[in-house]
Amino acid sequence: MMLEWLGHGGDWVTFAERYPEQVANGIDFSANINPLGPPAAVRHLWKELIPFLSRYPDPRQRRLREQLAEKHGVSPQMLLVTNGGAEAIDLLVRAIRPARVGVIEPCFSEYRQAAARAGAEVVRRMVPDSAEGFAIPYSLAEQLIREVDLLVLGNPNNPTGALWERSQLLALAEQAGRRNCHLLLDEAFLDFLPQEEHLSMMAAVPRLPNVAVVRSMTKMYAVPGLRLGYLAANRRLAERCRQLQPPWSVNGIAEQIGRLLVQDEDFVRRTRQWLAQERRWLTAALENLANGEGVRLVPMEAAVNYLLLRLEFPGWTDLRLQSRLAEEGIFIRACRTFAGMGERYVRIAVRSREENRRLIQAMERMDWEETQ
Amino acid sequence: MMLEWLGHGGDWVTFAERYPEQVANGIDFSANINPLGPPAAVRHLWKELIPFLSRYPDPRQRRLREQLAEKHGVSPQMLLVTNGGAEAIDLLVRAIRPARVGVIEPCFSEYRQAAARAGAEVVRRMVPDSAEGFAIPYSLAEQLIREVDLLVLGNPNNPTGALWERSQLLALAEQAGRRNCHLLLDEAFLDFLPQEEHLSMMAAVPRLPNVAVVRSMTKMYAVPGLRLGYLAANRRLAERCRQLQPPWSVNGIAEQIGRLLVQDEDFVRRTRQWLAQERRWLTAALENLANGEGVRLVPMEAAVNYLLLRLEFPGWTDLRLQSRLAEEGIFIRACRTFAGMGERYVRIAVRSREENRRLIQAMERMDWEETQ
Repeated sequence: MMLEWLGHGGDWVTFAERYPEQVANGIDFSANINPLGPPAAVRHLWKELIPFLSRYPDPRQRRLREQLAEKHGVSPQMLLVTNGGAEAIDLLVRAIRPARVGVIEPCFSEYRQAAARAGAEVVRRMVPDSAEGFAIPYSLAEQLIREVDLLVLGNPNNPTGALWERSQLLALAEQAGRRNCHLLLDEAFLDFLPQEEHLSMMAAVPRLPNVAVVRSMTKMYAVPGLRLGYLAANRRLAERCRQLQPPWSVNGIAEQIGRLLVQDEDFVRRTRQWLAQERRWLTAALENLANGEGVRLVPMEAAVNYLLLRLEFPGWTDLRLQSRLAEEGIFIRACRTFAGMGERYVRIAVRSREENRRLIQAMERMDWEETQ
Repeated sequence: MMLEWLGHGGDWVTFAERYPEQVANGIDFSANINPLGPPAAVRHLWKELIPFLSRYPDPRQRRLREQLAEKHGVSPQMLLVTNGGAEAIDLLVRAIRPARVGVIEPCFSEYRQAAARAGAEVVRRMVPDSAEGFAIPYSLAEQLIREVDLLVLGNPNNPTGALWERSQLLALAEQAGRRNCHLLLDEAFLDFLPQEEHLSMMAAVPRLPNVAVVRSMTKMYAVPGLRLGYLAANRRLAERCRQLQPPWSVNGIAEQIGRLLVQDEDFVRRTRQWLAQERRWLTAALENLANGEGVRLVPMEAAVNYLLLRLEFPGWTDLRLQSRLAEEGIFIRACRTFAGMGERYVRIAVRSREENRRLIQAMERMDWEETQ
């Protein structure tokens, strides 16, 4: 049975239940978390955080919000810190109250989940795998905007690495604006890309009242356990999100660590350097597998911290590879829970060299000729 | 200006902004947090929690939920762990989808806030201060049930300490059941009372499909910064709440600490012993203030970890006392944000002996004759 039975990767509890002997040396390739993190500063601060257990978090996240406002060049009133990116998506969809939400699959399943929770109809377009991987034709988004009140796009998209140029997003935003349609851009993985500043729509939010941006601090800083994200939107929309958010939704430890992380630009720089190198290494190693005809690397527009593989040999599904690797303590993401991907794709996070090497060695040992 | 401008006590950020010189030695009497906590076990575990920063929390909180199920004698399917009690209230109101929500004021303002967020009409009854304090006549709840789809009661009630007997709650539940009305019982402070087991409706939830119970681990264990609460309800309602909850809403640090806290019965026992003694001491000290005619202790049914005072001298409001004490580093709760309380009540948490003594000394120095 798939380790993603709850719909997402990174379910270490299920992994531990199924493969108890692999836990001690297990590696999680199924969640796209930066292996360099958390930054050293977090470890140093950790002991000083105990007093914040006993204090209510700031219900308005004033200090963290001001730091984020300065970083992104928007007013604090346009920002809301959230209990992870997942809460940001949930609040925005509920606050916008769209009758119809457009998503382009395969994408992060929370887009349609949030739409369903808010009682909206989900309008889906499927992008098939092609020579360019799952790159999304501009025309597809353009057409979809005509049918919905809210279009959600990941930039870059998870799990396919599809990427939108700023000029495309500006054109989509303009088109959407004419139709009274909102654009929700999920930039959860954008900070891994060196072109971040050029691609991010954060700073454009003040000029584009129908565009909202979601950010996550979870992946870059390797703190998914903390839950820390934020959103940027026009003041009225941001305020409506705040009103829907239960008080103290962002915990006090996340708040304090967040204030530290915002300042750690050096960590982001080092991560990007590492990623450029390590992604190249892992890509080459996968392409040069001695038994490499069994898997195909799916091309990606964005050089994000994850790769997508397609299993080419007959009888090999995402679940078969997942269970084979799990027996060796390697937990990868089976992609069948992503709509439109079928049973032949797996997603792999870029991890440390040592961990990546273990993955490659395990892949080398795979007997693709094996049936059943 | 009142320190509760955001609607709640415990806003240390506002206190720190207004009284920067008082922060270092400031005491927060405005939030009802157990001064004995967090339990020593939390400090001991703290360093081992760092790895949980980098792991997604269990989206189903399986282990913690099982521990809670065992503790309360209900099935895990009836439980949902939440991002503090505030999220539990929010999810229940949204899942029940009542057209009309009944609250008996003064009470925790989140009941009506959650109702407003869910688009429900709030039907309020006011209990006036009397010789019995703000005790709530049974007939008031009985009447209110006839007008609403959901009645929310704090047991014990915050900030008034009004308490419901189990027989009363069973009768209300039965009456509500006949009318297809839900009863939401907020037991956030119940674990401070020695009669907890006798009064709690947790174990009755399996028999009462229209009763839901909210619990908080924040107050007893002094971890409001962590955000940790849970709810019990019939399976369908609990499942509906889960569907409305964004994934990973409970952070991984809270999850791990929660698993530790559930087992710490000794800490609860010691807290109750301490509270019985310290509440008596603080009550007597307040009654015996040399200048005691300025304040009156409001009688309470429940011996909870907070006291309610009424200012009797002309010209003295909650805000005046709050600012006088704040200048000495003592942060108390002005009660005007509780509907129906007016400007003459303040709430005070029972703190450690040393802290309580500082409060008493500051009160002794108060010049009630002072005008303006």
